[in-house]
Amino acid sequence: MSPDARRALTRSMTSSAPTPKFLSALSGETHANPPIWFMRQAGRYLPEYRAVRATAPDFISFCFDPEKAAEVTLQPMRRFPYDASIVFADILLVPGALGQKVWFEAGEGPKLGEMPSIESMAEKAGNAGEALKLVGETLTRVRSALDPSKALIGFAGAPWTVATYMIEGGSSDRSGARTYAYQNPEKLDALIQVLVDSTVDYLAMQVDAGAQALKLFESWAEGLSEPLFDRLVTQPHIRIIEGLRARGVTAPIIGFPRGAGTLVEDYAAKTPVQGVALDTSASAKLGQEIQKTKTIQGALDPLLLRAGGDELLRRVDQLLEQWNQGPYIFNLGHGILPDTPIANVELVLERVTGHKVGG
Amino acid sequence: MSPDARRALTRSMTSSAPTPKFLSALSGETHANPPIWFMRQAGRYLPEYRAVRATAPDFISFCFDPEKAAEVTLQPMRRFPYDASIVFADILLVPGALGQKVWFEAGEGPKLGEMPSIESMAEKAGNAGEALKLVGETLTRVRSALDPSKALIGFAGAPWTVATYMIEGGSSDRSGARTYAYQNPEKLDALIQVLVDSTVDYLAMQVDAGAQALKLFESWAEGLSEPLFDRLVTQPHIRIIEGLRARGVTAPIIGFPRGAGTLVEDYAAKTPVQGVALDTSASAKLGQEIQKTKTIQGALDPLLLRAGGDELLRRVDQLLEQWNQGPYIFNLGHGILPDTPIANVELVLERVTGHKVGG
Repeated sequence: MSPDARRALTRSMTSSAPTPKFLSALSGETHANPPIWFMRQAGRYLPEYRAVRATAPDFISFCFDPEKAAEVTLQPMRRFPYDASIVFADILLVPGALGQKVWFEAGEGPKLGEMPSIESMAEKAGNAGEALKLVGETLTRVRSALDPSKALIGFAGAPWTVATYMIEGGSSDRSGARTYAYQNPEKLDALIQVLVDSTVDYLAMQVDAGAQALKLFESWAEGLSEPLFDRLVTQPHIRIIEGLRARGVTAPIIGFPRGAGTLVEDYAAKTPVQGVALDTSASAKLGQEIQKTKTIQGALDPLLLRAGGDELLRRVDQLLEQWNQGPYIFNLGHGILPDTPIANVELVLERVTGHKVGG
Repeated sequence: MSPDARRALTRSMTSSAPTPKFLSALSGETHANPPIWFMRQAGRYLPEYRAVRATAPDFISFCFDPEKAAEVTLQPMRRFPYDASIVFADILLVPGALGQKVWFEAGEGPKLGEMPSIESMAEKAGNAGEALKLVGETLTRVRSALDPSKALIGFAGAPWTVATYMIEGGSSDRSGARTYAYQNPEKLDALIQVLVDSTVDYLAMQVDAGAQALKLFESWAEGLSEPLFDRLVTQPHIRIIEGLRARGVTAPIIGFPRGAGTLVEDYAAKTPVQGVALDTSASAKLGQEIQKTKTIQGALDPLLLRAGGDELLRRVDQLLEQWNQGPYIFNLGHGILPDTPIANVELVLERVTGHKVGG
């Protein structure tokens, strides 16, 4: 962290302005009306997002255009009373910074070129923050425009999840990457370490640029056996957090081991994250168990948010009832779907915040 | 259960022949070398299976040909010291019995025609066993050829899993079926009940025909929220088991809620199954917890079985060490993959049984 950034952080923490509710919850406070934000809240369910997206030549250029990226990051904050804003970027920017070609084909998701040698990527890992400084510029723009009561979240894809794309050359059922983990353990461990190092550098840059909290997206934790999960998820997350702390980064961190099932308990016990994001299938009991030592976040089904109706409100009430006796951040169990009606988002925000929302 | 079948069962239970190890484990006994079988052990990794498969015009006809189906069920029992045999059939035979067209397209998986009305399916539900009696004939053939020390397992797809195919017309990411569950709760509940009733009739017929244990495959439990899981998985499984017991079926039952994560604990506590099959991501602790009241089965990663090597043996040893102090049936966490080397299967069988296997 730069001296300036550290001073700014200290200032923000000691100033008389109240701590944003999101950060208060993440520090362990309990709120009867928990803070709320939605994964992919800057996204296609908003017509104003689609309008800006249409002006960018491709998805990667869009992520690297601080003006446009800041604009879409702020759009949902203008429209809804979300408590936190997450920088608009993508988990596959890091492979790009390491020299692997990444592009998006319409309707097909990400594609990645051949993976560079470990040696060449290792050389670039310590420079990931500098290589991705345009994301920092987006963060700085957003932070300066954002109300002080709202928190700004930076993020990165976690090493295993990013590695699955790098190994398989795109989206997959991860069986190729898991087989690689079994057949080439040393090579995979070396790749994971390159990703640990680059993620530390990238996230430290994001905090310097204005991020007040960080999230590690382990989107593909599902299906990993217990030893593989420990080796590829838990231990790398610990190394990333230790690396950040060693660089003086004090921002709270949320880990999201999506699909990890019963392994989440062990993850929560071992990793020094402040928050654990839970997916759609998390049990009430799991959340309550983790709340004894950490803040939890989640876990409304995005399909239910899209479907709406009484079932949606019943589930929101149930989530509040089961988890708002401890530190809790209301969120989805996965990203918001592009065809989610805005009225449903407003309904949930109204229920969670206790205030009238929208028209 | 017919009087004849009941007598046969009583005889098999009171005769001086030792109980098959698989059934002993399922009744709660602990074995230092647990019984072992593999999901899809009658399958494409065996050249002799592929040879028989090539003689059947299509997959459904293959399932309905008792001679061929019995032959492929027995093939792995001749080659390997598996402790249990599972009848060769498919979870989508039930929709066919309810009047929905089902077919398989090469390389594409199952396809289903339009779903009949609930009323017409409800009329057929109580006749599912009769409609699928060719599966019973397969079971009877297998039972008469099988060594008495080996157990014979019958099975069915569980209602929610079967419903996802029926609603979506084939394989899917289940988001259509989950949305249907939110938007048409009464219709879905009616469909689930039809499947509960037909599954009871189908499984009772399988026991009459020779099955000594039953397995409910809930292959698509993943992603369900806690209330949806209770409504669509746990409660229907309870109703199926109660229905079977009410008909005098005493065979032990294994439930396999694949991908249910932390919800498995609740499932194990609530459903009167004798065994809980665990998927690849089950933690050691989860299994040990369930072993206090039930038998567990699982959970070797099929990708690791295919990959082989030292990593495979280390994991087998770990599974044995963590679970063989309680009732445990060794198995995979999912079906064996078609390109699994037979030498790897032999290696695992050798390690688990403690006896030399193969050449």
